[in-house]
Amino acid sequence: MIIIGELINTSRKEISEAVDNRDAACIKRVALAQMEAGATYLDVNCGNKVHNEVEIMEWLVNTIQDDVEAPLCIDSPNPRALATGLALAKYGQPMINSITDEKERFAEVLPLVLAYKAKIVALCMDDTGMPNSAEDRMRAVNSLYAKLTAAGVPAGDIHFDPLVKPISVVSGAGIEVLETIQLIKKQYPQVHFACGLSNISFGLPARKTLNRLFVVQTMALGMDGYILNPTDKGMMGVIYAARALLDQDEYCGDYLTAYRNGLFV
Amino acid sequence: MIIIGELINTSRKEISEAVDNRDAACIKRVALAQMEAGATYLDVNCGNKVHNEVEIMEWLVNTIQDDVEAPLCIDSPNPRALATGLALAKYGQPMINSITDEKERFAEVLPLVLAYKAKIVALCMDDTGMPNSAEDRMRAVNSLYAKLTAAGVPAGDIHFDPLVKPISVVSGAGIEVLETIQLIKKQYPQVHFACGLSNISFGLPARKTLNRLFVVQTMALGMDGYILNPTDKGMMGVIYAARALLDQDEYCGDYLTAYRNGLFV
Repeated sequence: MIIIGELINTSRKEISEAVDNRDAACIKRVALAQMEAGATYLDVNCGNKVHNEVEIMEWLVNTIQDDVEAPLCIDSPNPRALATGLALAKYGQPMINSITDEKERFAEVLPLVLAYKAKIVALCMDDTGMPNSAEDRMRAVNSLYAKLTAAGVPAGDIHFDPLVKPISVVSGAGIEVLETIQLIKKQYPQVHFACGLSNISFGLPARKTLNRLFVVQTMALGMDGYILNPTDKGMMGVIYAARALLDQDEYCGDYLTAYRNGLFV
Repeated sequence: MIIIGELINTSRKEISEAVDNRDAACIKRVALAQMEAGATYLDVNCGNKVHNEVEIMEWLVNTIQDDVEAPLCIDSPNPRALATGLALAKYGQPMINSITDEKERFAEVLPLVLAYKAKIVALCMDDTGMPNSAEDRMRAVNSLYAKLTAAGVPAGDIHFDPLVKPISVVSGAGIEVLETIQLIKKQYPQVHFACGLSNISFGLPARKTLNRLFVVQTMALGMDGYILNPTDKGMMGVIYAARALLDQDEYCGDYLTAYRNGLFV
């Protein structure tokens, strides 16, 4: 199970202000809190700071690594910011968020995947835009898998994100994702996942309930990686419980620890 | 989705005492509360009153039906008690809990299924005892399906219960059930389910969390019937949320009603 902590993102007010003030203590605190809560990767995203994104990426990566020995998921639409973050990331195998099967994006990001032997989050989309079905997603999956592995990327370094849409807009949005997981698992058993999922509940009340249960549903179908807030105790409790139910937790040891840590209220 | 309310069972202290005192008001209250909370069937079980089970079954069925027009799930190890309950059940298609592929039990219960055109809960076990794998369960499923349909029972009236064991005892207990659901759905798409699931969490803390999430996992694989306590708001909230995520709830209407009714805290 890969948990990519999503909190270090300048689209969040706390992080935007910490960056503007070069408040290293805040960044380190958020990084540490996510690792202590169970993150296995830390996402680093300052993509909305368009005027000095490269410089901020450098500051963020160095600041986090001053205190926290965490593998990083470098997240940007800008290939120069990706390259800067990857060059500095020094703990474990770095991850890139993300590649797609859009011609231009693929051509920009592939060289970075190879140069830094990075894990890669691969979004199930191509130049035709957002996918509308499991079949749309599999067209992108088939193409990305073929081109990435042909270029030398190990299948196990590919983390597909099926792209989650709101059920309030497209009622079958959840089903499409569950179908996609099954198709990917059947056809490419070595690959992994890295799913951002909070879109699923957009426009509905009690969003946390929907987000948590969508994790449980997708885990039951074999999804093994998520981009989320690991300091959300309810969410992590759900993940520990789901792992115990899926025989991914020997003697329910992690579940019992989570219980003692108050993750089930 | 079939929700069989499990509360009218003399193994529960409240119901045992109500039966001993012929406290009709209590029985009616529990019956009504379950229907109002979303039950589609009411289970009626007085199997531990071995000395006068038949008489009590008669009293329970009549008492419930005095006030509540609910279809009943007549639940007993004793064929005479089953026959008595079925003969009195007058609202909708009755259900029998349960048949197995054990020679004696099958021979006793099949005539009742046919005589009362009842839905039948079919436990995935035979004379070799409790199943230890998805394959064990499918042996019973294949045999039960063949014999029941050959006798004239419509496939859609069969509700398989895969038999849930505690993950604290058998770590793969959850996975075995998920595999069984997939195999049944693939091979017999017309049948349904009726799963008692609280065993899954036996021996572990925070049992409600595990029970609820096991419902979410099994629903994601296609399970469509449960024997549970519908007055457990958290459990019903989870079911409404899971239905919305699985595109089983047009415009999320039931989910929004459940939200307004305070099922998500």
